[in-house]
Amino acid sequence: MNTALSPAAAVPTLADPDTPFAVVDVHKTLRNIERLARRAGRLGVTLRPHVKTAKSLDVAALLNGGAPCPVTVSTLAEAEAFADGGYTDITYAVGIDAHKLPRVIALLRRGVALRVLLDSREQAAFVTEAAHEAGLTIPAQIEIDCDGHRGGLKADAPALVDIGRVLHEAGCLDGVLAHAGESYFAYTPENQRLAAENERDTAVAAAERLRAAGLPVGTVSVGSTPTAHAAEDLTGVTELRAGNYVFFDLVMAGLGVCRVEDLALSVVVTVIGHRPEYGWIITDGGWMALSRDRGTSVQAQDQGYGLVLDLAGKPIPGLVMTGASQEHGTLTARDAADLPNLPVGTRLRILPNHACATAAQHRSYHVVDSTRPTDHAPAIRANWERISGW
Amino acid sequence: MNTALSPAAAVPTLADPDTPFAVVDVHKTLRNIERLARRAGRLGVTLRPHVKTAKSLDVAALLNGGAPCPVTVSTLAEAEAFADGGYTDITYAVGIDAHKLPRVIALLRRGVALRVLLDSREQAAFVTEAAHEAGLTIPAQIEIDCDGHRGGLKADAPALVDIGRVLHEAGCLDGVLAHAGESYFAYTPENQRLAAENERDTAVAAAERLRAAGLPVGTVSVGSTPTAHAAEDLTGVTELRAGNYVFFDLVMAGLGVCRVEDLALSVVVTVIGHRPEYGWIITDGGWMALSRDRGTSVQAQDQGYGLVLDLAGKPIPGLVMTGASQEHGTLTARDAADLPNLPVGTRLRILPNHACATAAQHRSYHVVDSTRPTDHAPAIRANWERISGW
Repeated sequence: MNTALSPAAAVPTLADPDTPFAVVDVHKTLRNIERLARRAGRLGVTLRPHVKTAKSLDVAALLNGGAPCPVTVSTLAEAEAFADGGYTDITYAVGIDAHKLPRVIALLRRGVALRVLLDSREQAAFVTEAAHEAGLTIPAQIEIDCDGHRGGLKADAPALVDIGRVLHEAGCLDGVLAHAGESYFAYTPENQRLAAENERDTAVAAAERLRAAGLPVGTVSVGSTPTAHAAEDLTGVTELRAGNYVFFDLVMAGLGVCRVEDLALSVVVTVIGHRPEYGWIITDGGWMALSRDRGTSVQAQDQGYGLVLDLAGKPIPGLVMTGASQEHGTLTARDAADLPNLPVGTRLRILPNHACATAAQHRSYHVVDSTRPTDHAPAIRANWERISGW
Repeated sequence: MNTALSPAAAVPTLADPDTPFAVVDVHKTLRNIERLARRAGRLGVTLRPHVKTAKSLDVAALLNGGAPCPVTVSTLAEAEAFADGGYTDITYAVGIDAHKLPRVIALLRRGVALRVLLDSREQAAFVTEAAHEAGLTIPAQIEIDCDGHRGGLKADAPALVDIGRVLHEAGCLDGVLAHAGESYFAYTPENQRLAAENERDTAVAAAERLRAAGLPVGTVSVGSTPTAHAAEDLTGVTELRAGNYVFFDLVMAGLGVCRVEDLALSVVVTVIGHRPEYGWIITDGGWMALSRDRGTSVQAQDQGYGLVLDLAGKPIPGLVMTGASQEHGTLTARDAADLPNLPVGTRLRILPNHACATAAQHRSYHVVDSTRPTDHAPAIRANWERISGW
């Protein structure tokens, strides 16, 4: 642990490292992980967590009792770090670029079953050509668009079967993958359930079209944190993906996918000033520590840059981080009369809008365990490094 | 240089590293640096650049022909890295927290003239107490609020003279500091000029109040990128601060402080897909590479997540990055009929809204020089590391 400890402290606590810094509650993380693992078990599908949120081998070790499991990654840097950590079943869920194929091939040669994603004839051509030249197969999934969110082919797109055939003839066709990205804007349980049904139906329809053309489809992969928690029937699907759920965040709480008390990631900040004439408390945690993500700004309850807890993790009702510059945060009370008395030096924890974005602002996490409650500063039980870069 | 080069390339170019990555144009950076240095010279003040934007000793080496110069920092990690680089005249321009004083004292003991900032009696008390205990002086500046942007005392606040006296009696009173943060929303040259006048007037008034009470004020520090470029007379001011100007960005171009062609920071991305039915080009550069900052969203011309250049640096008229998920960017044309033909694999450069926030998403910069024009991929002349963390 690379933290400066106060001389008297036998065990480091959240009062010890200089602020701002990121904190992960291992108990809440485990509870979130177990909740979705149980769901996947009931639904009869493999869970393939997306490690882009935590980007940490230590957090990933909670997924499967310390043993490697299937994972999804958002960068080849993650794929390489997880391969180094013994993970051998990895899906790289961003459309493949030809320039990145040497690193993909290097991972395949190390024995990692690394799947790539594509949605165009051009990509199918350069992937199969590179596979041929390298004398191996590059397992590829065809991205299916289920809700107009981002990339992918519609399940009835003419190109789907052509691409499937090119991949199959090179031994590279692994399956199809869909992501209901628009479910982040599905504000009711019913709409989340419908988004999950649509995600499944679209992925399965694409797989059936390929099969009807004589093309074998192994993997039918779906998932997003909202739909993974809303799906009631995944018939035809082989695997479920979700990433954010390990930590959750205020966007997910606003959608009702989790409760605020499930949020496992927070940022510790210190009060450095007061502007009573404006109703502001100033902290040393700005957008560099929280990110510029304001995902809740489009939700019914805008949570600013985040909700405020005391250092022990207890919410301070009505206190919101409403402003951010690079290294300054501004806290205000929803009811101005209620601005609490928090002297200079007081440490607080901020619950973020978007865990993926906030975590990305930090190199590591200090780890606490909320099953060991304290009125004071929780003990730091470990420091977990993040993977960064591409 | 830690980049994978294509085997045929004698010199690495922007076509070589895997995307996304950050690029700094050393020529534009130098031109921006020289422009403000000339202004400061004409105005008769010391320039103390804020290194929080680039966070790079290599970029800082451009400020003064390779020799250390006075700098401003936003974190103690920057102060420590710059001290290691031989910089001995540093202002830490975020309100001081008592917990951070051991690192401040360690820097002072290394011979670094490190100034701290404060705006409360509590901070003055713990700073002077720590100085007394350590047997040294901690030079402190009193933060003055000139526009209600963030922290600081009004120039006529009763506490100002009390705090000044406490600091002076401990030998710690260095001066006053003001930052016209609201100038980022001053949309005309006249309003920027008025913001600069107000910033100067407020800082000088605070200094004069302290002097009238018999308290010696050495430093009268003002600055922000817009006011530093708008100030016409800095009588009474001793030093000027600005940070963003080394790179500039679309927010500053939108304010008219610079031209789009002055922007020295961009992010290289690759086209990975197309959704012609939506008018979208999909790239592998999302908010992880650009940040979530959307500063231009409140300006007359919203520039989305950024404007698009070809790899050689030539603008692609009307093409804007309008959407971002973690590792995906969406480009659209302002006039949908004009969506250019950019095949999968095409590399592009994105000019960001906010250079400080975009740069913070990267560990290093690849460096090009636009005075050596090319129709192809510019040569990479160096790789410059960034300072990160707190």
